[in-house]
Amino acid sequence: MFFDKETYVNRRSELIKKIGSGIIVLPGNSESARNFKANTYFFVQDSSFLYYMGINLPDLVLVLNCETGESILFGNEVSLEHTIWIGPQEPLRSKAYNVGVYKVLSFDKLSDYIKDYLNITKIHFLPPYRISTTLLLSNLVGLSIREVSVNSSKELIDAVVSQREIKSSEEIDELEQAIGITKEMHVKVISKAKPGLKESDLVGALESSAISAGGRTAYPPIVSIQGQILHNINYTNELRRGQLLLGDFGGLSSSGYAGDITRTIPVSGKFSAKQKEIYQIVLDAQKRAIEMLEPNVLYRDVHLAACYKLAEGLKDLGLMKGDVKDAVATGAHALFFPHGLGHMIGLDVHDMESLGENNVGYDTEVLKSEQFGLKSLRLGKRLKEGFTITVEPGIYFIPELFHEWKSNNVECAPFLNFPTIESYLDFGGVRIEDEYVITRSGSNLIGEYIPKEISEIEQIMN
Amino acid sequence: MFFDKETYVNRRSELIKKIGSGIIVLPGNSESARNFKANTYFFVQDSSFLYYMGINLPDLVLVLNCETGESILFGNEVSLEHTIWIGPQEPLRSKAYNVGVYKVLSFDKLSDYIKDYLNITKIHFLPPYRISTTLLLSNLVGLSIREVSVNSSKELIDAVVSQREIKSSEEIDELEQAIGITKEMHVKVISKAKPGLKESDLVGALESSAISAGGRTAYPPIVSIQGQILHNINYTNELRRGQLLLGDFGGLSSSGYAGDITRTIPVSGKFSAKQKEIYQIVLDAQKRAIEMLEPNVLYRDVHLAACYKLAEGLKDLGLMKGDVKDAVATGAHALFFPHGLGHMIGLDVHDMESLGENNVGYDTEVLKSEQFGLKSLRLGKRLKEGFTITVEPGIYFIPELFHEWKSNNVECAPFLNFPTIESYLDFGGVRIEDEYVITRSGSNLIGEYIPKEISEIEQIMN
Repeated sequence: MFFDKETYVNRRSELIKKIGSGIIVLPGNSESARNFKANTYFFVQDSSFLYYMGINLPDLVLVLNCETGESILFGNEVSLEHTIWIGPQEPLRSKAYNVGVYKVLSFDKLSDYIKDYLNITKIHFLPPYRISTTLLLSNLVGLSIREVSVNSSKELIDAVVSQREIKSSEEIDELEQAIGITKEMHVKVISKAKPGLKESDLVGALESSAISAGGRTAYPPIVSIQGQILHNINYTNELRRGQLLLGDFGGLSSSGYAGDITRTIPVSGKFSAKQKEIYQIVLDAQKRAIEMLEPNVLYRDVHLAACYKLAEGLKDLGLMKGDVKDAVATGAHALFFPHGLGHMIGLDVHDMESLGENNVGYDTEVLKSEQFGLKSLRLGKRLKEGFTITVEPGIYFIPELFHEWKSNNVECAPFLNFPTIESYLDFGGVRIEDEYVITRSGSNLIGEYIPKEISEIEQIMN
Repeated sequence: MFFDKETYVNRRSELIKKIGSGIIVLPGNSESARNFKANTYFFVQDSSFLYYMGINLPDLVLVLNCETGESILFGNEVSLEHTIWIGPQEPLRSKAYNVGVYKVLSFDKLSDYIKDYLNITKIHFLPPYRISTTLLLSNLVGLSIREVSVNSSKELIDAVVSQREIKSSEEIDELEQAIGITKEMHVKVISKAKPGLKESDLVGALESSAISAGGRTAYPPIVSIQGQILHNINYTNELRRGQLLLGDFGGLSSSGYAGDITRTIPVSGKFSAKQKEIYQIVLDAQKRAIEMLEPNVLYRDVHLAACYKLAEGLKDLGLMKGDVKDAVATGAHALFFPHGLGHMIGLDVHDMESLGENNVGYDTEVLKSEQFGLKSLRLGKRLKEGFTITVEPGIYFIPELFHEWKSNNVECAPFLNFPTIESYLDFGGVRIEDEYVITRSGSNLIGEYIPKEISEIEQIMN
């Protein structure tokens, strides 16, 4: 199911070498309760724990001792009584051996183990994103709940990012596997969508594919005829002729790598002339961005190039006006494209997002902008060979934002043709998203091609 | 989607009356992070919050002031910037008005509000089951994390249980709606199951029905050819001819009421002679239990009657021996039936389980047993009109338990024919589960009948 022993041994020893001294604590996740303790959500492991340890079970903590070079797994074996409920299990000890960890101690030994080092050397941990982990760390290192996150180790964050951001060929295989499942999900939705269905019917169908493939959806699916609502996860609308349906979802590979693809299709099976125009602008912007992908290019510049392309197209349609470069510099295009062009992808759909967007997507060379639109770009820094990223431009007509800008955005107003835009307010939104890996001299599409040309989509639907 | 204003007003005023003095704090749930903060599980509201407030949104706290009689909702309105991402929302204030709460304060006012009462009167809260809620209460009432749960209000628990355990007719309508969805899920699985499919294919299919119906599965579905593993949620096995498939799952009604039904079917479409014998014993035990359902009967006695019936059948088959009453008194039948006959069901699949099994299913008259088997019975106390419960006997052949008992269980050994049982160790397990409401003079099946006779199941499958 997961990678071979050497992979994990090498990942851990590289991390130990990078950090050099002190103790690294990497807590796995616990089960999450829905409406009472025993009624849990499906289990999702912490992605850094999974990266260094490969065990997809709750209530484990990996400790890497940089002083001795030792890896120790803290966790409990399953009792006989518990076996009755969950079936016979391979011993934890044996699972740890399979990934090259030969010291397994019961969970209650963890606290004393850390205590022995507390005032002697640094205890490195990553910023927690679940309160259960915050509480565990708070108890282990003797910090208040509030102090935990700010005392996480920048050194450890940087070391983990430097390892995880470069994907090995076996990781890219996993991402391709995730795309295989994700393609099946998208083709199902494209084939099935028709007037009269509910969004939830399609979500049911795609969840079914993700689960049959042995996993889950990698994140809450967006399946909406209101594509302009960027995080619409209500699924209550009925599909009507003439509308666009935006589908942003993906499956998980068997080792937990995420798929993240977006397609936008016409409910009736045929794009209208107006829909074709907007769709083609988005597709052209995506292609422009993809052409630029190669090592050493700033992803912020790729984002901006896509923005120029979008703005040019919108200007040709009479929705924007003035100088395109000035418009983008002012942020006027963000009325239509308020989010970023993409993000890293791996074991997390927004890879390593819990380590901090600035630590993952930015560096000392490229700082995050505070401008509306650009501030939502998760990745701005220079691309490297082995980065795996999404490219996902979009055009949306968001009535609330339109009305706000029309009344109050003096800076952007010169670039926006408000009366024309107003006639698009019932349009919805278009986004097209694919995943790419940066190669030595350019980039490759990850996984099989998923139809995105207007003619291809209409062909599947008719 | 939810009930009318009067329902919520009445529920709250009854609770305020029962508690009489002090302040009641009912926190709703927050979003739960999967592998980073923004990647959340689907939202599940706290069931007591939902019962008294009917609003299915995160980060709200309901306060009932028993001194003034007032209900106050603490929570924040959605900002314009957030509206861009999640779409236009009905104001929280208006949602609160719809359920008769006319005072809505921003979340940051909560702490000061509680502080004003802290040393003057009692602050009542229920035992939290999510660490985020524990932390919130810890900050509000000035207790350490460890102290929160033990300082929950027994008075409040008892009052909430006394209200929630008696279902109104509109609640029963909701449970029937949940069964409607659940029936569709089961019929789909029964019709679809065949050799060569994976368990995950069926889980995908049933999740699809639950989601299309606008909800989710009420708890992690059990769909397994290893029915003897009671909480088997791995879904990795391939279905093979000759095996039994146990399916224990249910959907949610539009107001969040749970469905919980179990069926066991032969993968090949035909039960073998051996499977028929065991299946019929379980079905007879379920029918015996159902006959007994009426107000004032101890559910523990219904459980025991089902155990007698199971033990009689197993004795007839030569798997058990000796006096049946003595066997059940000793707990020998629990080798085959290690769990309880049922539990309350409502907004939680194990209704109110977070309030403590002893507080919900037991009382001063009936205390929970510590005997293996009986200790897993979640409901033991006298039934009342309006209780909604599950009836779910089973027979399992659990190799680990068999080997343990064969070597070490001297007390139960006289009632067990180990050599014959050994020849069943590859049998798997059978469970049959339905939901009933206690009426004035007996009980009614909740929702439409879902086929469970041997002939009915074989007919659907062939």
